[in-house]
Amino acid sequence: MAALIDRQSSGVFIIAATPFTDDGALDLESADRMVDFYLECGVSGMTILGIMGEAPKLAPDESMTFARHVLDRVAGRVPVIVGVSAAGLDNMARLTGAVMEAGAGGVMVAPQPGLLTDPKLKGYIAQVCAALGPDVPICFQDYPQTTGVQVSVETIIDLTVKHPQIVMLKHEDWPGLTKLSRVRAETGVGDVPRMSILTGNSALFLAQEMQRGADGAMTGFAYPEMLVQVVARHRAGDVDGAEDLFDAYLPMVRYEQQLGLGLAIRKEVLRRRGVLASAKVRAPGPSLTDRDHEELSRLMARLDKRLGELS
Amino acid sequence: MAALIDRQSSGVFIIAATPFTDDGALDLESADRMVDFYLECGVSGMTILGIMGEAPKLAPDESMTFARHVLDRVAGRVPVIVGVSAAGLDNMARLTGAVMEAGAGGVMVAPQPGLLTDPKLKGYIAQVCAALGPDVPICFQDYPQTTGVQVSVETIIDLTVKHPQIVMLKHEDWPGLTKLSRVRAETGVGDVPRMSILTGNSALFLAQEMQRGADGAMTGFAYPEMLVQVVARHRAGDVDGAEDLFDAYLPMVRYEQQLGLGLAIRKEVLRRRGVLASAKVRAPGPSLTDRDHEELSRLMARLDKRLGELS
Amino acid sequence: MAALIDRQSSGVFIIAATPFTDDGALDLESADRMVDFYLECGVSGMTILGIMGEAPKLAPDESMTFARHVLDRVAGRVPVIVGVSAAGLDNMARLTGAVMEAGAGGVMVAPQPGLLTDPKLKGYIAQVCAALGPDVPICFQDYPQTTGVQVSVETIIDLTVKHPQIVMLKHEDWPGLTKLSRVRAETGVGDVPRMSILTGNSALFLAQEMQRGADGAMTGFAYPEMLVQVVARHRAGDVDGAEDLFDAYLPMVRYEQQLGLGLAIRKEVLRRRGVLASAKVRAPGPSLTDRDHEELSRLMARLDKRLGELS
Amino acid sequence: MAALIDRQSSGVFIIAATPFTDDGALDLESADRMVDFYLECGVSGMTILGIMGEAPKLAPDESMTFARHVLDRVAGRVPVIVGVSAAGLDNMARLTGAVMEAGAGGVMVAPQPGLLTDPKLKGYIAQVCAALGPDVPICFQDYPQTTGVQVSVETIIDLTVKHPQIVMLKHEDWPGLTKLSRVRAETGVGDVPRMSILTGNSALFLAQEMQRGADGAMTGFAYPEMLVQVVARHRAGDVDGAEDLFDAYLPMVRYEQQLGLGLAIRKEVLRRRGVLASAKVRAPGPSLTDRDHEELSRLMARLDKRLGELS
Repeated sequence: MAALIDRQSSGVFIIAATPFTDDGALDLESADRMVDFYLECGVSGMTILGIMGEAPKLAPDESMTFARHVLDRVAGRVPVIVGVSAAGLDNMARLTGAVMEAGAGGVMVAPQPGLLTDPKLKGYIAQVCAALGPDVPICFQDYPQTTGVQVSVETIIDLTVKHPQIVMLKHEDWPGLTKLSRVRAETGVGDVPRMSILTGNSALFLAQEMQRGADGAMTGFAYPEMLVQVVARHRAGDVDGAEDLFDAYLPMVRYEQQLGLGLAIRKEVLRRRGVLASAKVRAPGPSLTDRDHEELSRLMARLDKRLGELS
Repeated sequence: MAALIDRQSSGVFIIAATPFTDDGALDLESADRMVDFYLECGVSGMTILGIMGEAPKLAPDESMTFARHVLDRVAGRVPVIVGVSAAGLDNMARLTGAVMEAGAGGVMVAPQPGLLTDPKLKGYIAQVCAALGPDVPICFQDYPQTTGVQVSVETIIDLTVKHPQIVMLKHEDWPGLTKLSRVRAETGVGDVPRMSILTGNSALFLAQEMQRGADGAMTGFAYPEMLVQVVARHRAGDVDGAEDLFDAYLPMVRYEQQLGLGLAIRKEVLRRRGVLASAKVRAPGPSLTDRDHEELSRLMARLDKRLGELS
Repeated sequence: MAALIDRQSSGVFIIAATPFTDDGALDLESADRMVDFYLECGVSGMTILGIMGEAPKLAPDESMTFARHVLDRVAGRVPVIVGVSAAGLDNMARLTGAVMEAGAGGVMVAPQPGLLTDPKLKGYIAQVCAALGPDVPICFQDYPQTTGVQVSVETIIDLTVKHPQIVMLKHEDWPGLTKLSRVRAETGVGDVPRMSILTGNSALFLAQEMQRGADGAMTGFAYPEMLVQVVARHRAGDVDGAEDLFDAYLPMVRYEQQLGLGLAIRKEVLRRRGVLASAKVRAPGPSLTDRDHEELSRLMARLDKRLGELS
Repeated sequence: MAALIDRQSSGVFIIAATPFTDDGALDLESADRMVDFYLECGVSGMTILGIMGEAPKLAPDESMTFARHVLDRVAGRVPVIVGVSAAGLDNMARLTGAVMEAGAGGVMVAPQPGLLTDPKLKGYIAQVCAALGPDVPICFQDYPQTTGVQVSVETIIDLTVKHPQIVMLKHEDWPGLTKLSRVRAETGVGDVPRMSILTGNSALFLAQEMQRGADGAMTGFAYPEMLVQVVARHRAGDVDGAEDLFDAYLPMVRYEQQLGLGLAIRKEVLRRRGVLASAKVRAPGPSLTDRDHEELSRLMARLDKRLGELS
């Protein structure tokens, strides 16, 4: 029985890496370890086959093999969201059907590039909802830096009102703090239903975003325990404590937030932490120089020291 | 007494070049000859200081010198629209005030890059209208290839309803034929006032656009007499004759439509036709190779031959 | 035995549509008719699974089914190029291996978005060549309007020198006439090997491009007989006759060149000409309004009339 | 006697705001206070009329008034760099001549948008150098997020070798740490002259960049004393102390780094610190919500607290 996402979903939905062996094959053993690690960290959900998951570099059968493997390992303990954005609706619907049947908790959809007016975007999302069917919960990914599609608060609200299955916003517009405040203030009031808001952008503003009403985070930071604790402290009313902890990790958050390169850094941190057997990124992709490795070692050591001071 | 643009404006508003001498100075003598040439061709208006006018490459005092000179020469015989798009509203308002006082018939405003949601665009245009004052007629330039701002039909209509001074649309979205049909059909009905629609994009679809209800063209094609005749024939009910004439010029229209390079081609054709003393484009800018010059000669000769066959 | 592309390849390589039934299924019967039609028109090659072929909207097995079907029907009479651009090298290599084994004559590769410096682009193409293996002939697609990657003449020459398997350039930079002249002049001299140059961009400048030394065209214009005759006349020394014929079709070429919408127009023309059973484009995709249909009818009728005048 | 920038320039070149009164007029009194404040903070130079200086929103005479005023107040104590990027070379040369005569220490030039191949970019910079004359020291601004022009390490080195007047790199490519390491390693060796490297991007990676060999920073952070101390500690060999101090300010650095909005935040911090009379940004421009103001207060208070812990 799958756990589904809904308008109340909250906590940390970690964006999962796709582990490869050094020669580039899917590494399902590491995938198991990674799933266990995330769950031990206390995540409330997972997201797979996103950009960080290198989804477009998987062969179609690999995508399903990996998705099924993760879903089996999670076994319904937390909802798993699957990224299904695709150029064609047929492919999107096919993948959605397969993963929902395999136990996914919902899918994540970003606008295709080129949907540059409100009517075009709304028309596209209506087509998507019709193609997926009304029973599939959708997380709408608002990520203009990658899609090139800017979405107004008015449009986000229109989408969640018109399409009850759009229950969650992955907020990663930037700068986006005012946008987050507005979506929070203008949903869950009157006829507009509440919407779960999870923040992305590598969590660079997580403390501020929680203070502005986010329900949690959806990002792939390689220290998920920080994300979990910040959200937990915040909810427990310890706003300052949440921000203190966040700030201690901020040098590393900032380091991982480097567009493109961040994926290589995250996989390397997960490797060093014993989660992944290899930090392999499929070609073409970023890789770390020797200098980067030293810098990362320094940053990791500094983080340990700072955490020691705090405790 | 200046002729002002309004919601009924029609015909050909030629986009005027800014003539330079070979060493790059403003050439006001050629400007006089150019104004006379355009008027003899039968244009219904002119547009100056647009992108084709190399406005951003003029010194501020040159802009006003040139604008005043053209306005004096035109002497109210046709309305002259001045391009005033600028990064800051203060500069835009200052230039607008000066040219309106000097006898301009209205100004042309394109959205600044970055206004990528409906609310942002609408807010910006409201700021512009307030800064310019309600008495200045505005031509809204819809040119996404250059501005990066996509504007929906719904938004265009909203702008012209909310801001009565926005009386004209320069239509150069592409592909944009359906958009033109919709703006035509959805303005001038019910509470929505009529809007003058002049088409740009180098007139590549002028015949089709007239058939879909355009009021004329605003472009800088170096044979303005074709634009004038096509519009005239069309209005006189000779739809086929209009399109026959247009198609005869199409190889040259297509040749001039090359983004960037088109400006150098137009100035060279105007030079060969005796209008400009020099085809000089200010640096950095495009220039024609020897091969381009030969190709242009061939295309001009073929055009003459084809016009001979038609007559 | 497959016909392979090489540095002398010339003529018209038609970009094939992917035919669907009205309900969106692959239509292999229409595919047969289309292949026969193209061959009867006298094309020298075909290109499948390109953007016009709606490749990204096919399911993986559909891609191979369609490719194998076309390759079987062509049966080595002309080389068939297969578009294999993909986010990951593994997927690209896998598809390439499969289609080359099935009889393809080469593959077409466009740079991935984001390769925005010379060293990055050159490094990527080196990776691609290594991944595909040296025996696979490559057509390099230079299409900045879609990829966002601008490639200099110097870089194109460097690529074809360093990678002997890059034998063909699909030229669709725009404006690109001077670029074409330079690639022609600077290859096939000294140590730089000749390169086959086929032009794209909907053939909007085909006559000029042949005059500047192109070897032919690679585009999907729905009247392939025009492309074939223009290239043939030009090679036979009838430069004016080639351009006369081209100009007669120019209103239609220009109409089909509308980015995005062009695909719907081409499929509709092919349907009207009896080649395809349906003009279906997979969602999300462009569709023609009633007004577009009328306009197309008018343009087709005008073309017939003009061809009558010419003959 | 003006202080000129050269290949050894180092330290903090603060990017100066352009102060306005609440009603938008130039505020020269605040400008004086700001210049004094920056000098008291220990900056090694200043940069005016950059993007943060709202240069494109100034009237031409305002630009010169402000530049002369700042240059007079600085009175040669540190070099002042003036941003002169413009659409046309004539305007760029005119402004450069005027500010160099008034005592500027050099100019900053960014590539114009559209220079998307190496040969185009190199040709443009050669034109710029010729137009400005060989005696004007140039800081080349490598800022692809704003210009859209990606520049390789190879090209940067080529520019500084071919044009001896290009003595400084403003490094703000992102992610750009490896690029910085390479420019450092590949200049100042063999025939390649040393180049001053100052880093931008709001100093988000200042500690790492100093460790990789940067000569300092050129950014507008509203606590210049931090930038000055980090650079000074680093040079004194206190690498850890430099990074400790930087990390204490990182939450604020990150907050100011919000593209666009950052300008409003910086002006507000400078206002709160008693430097500017008003935080006014010229229209169209960003403004802070009440929520933003509270958030900023919280971040400023947390910074004070953290600095207290450190001392």
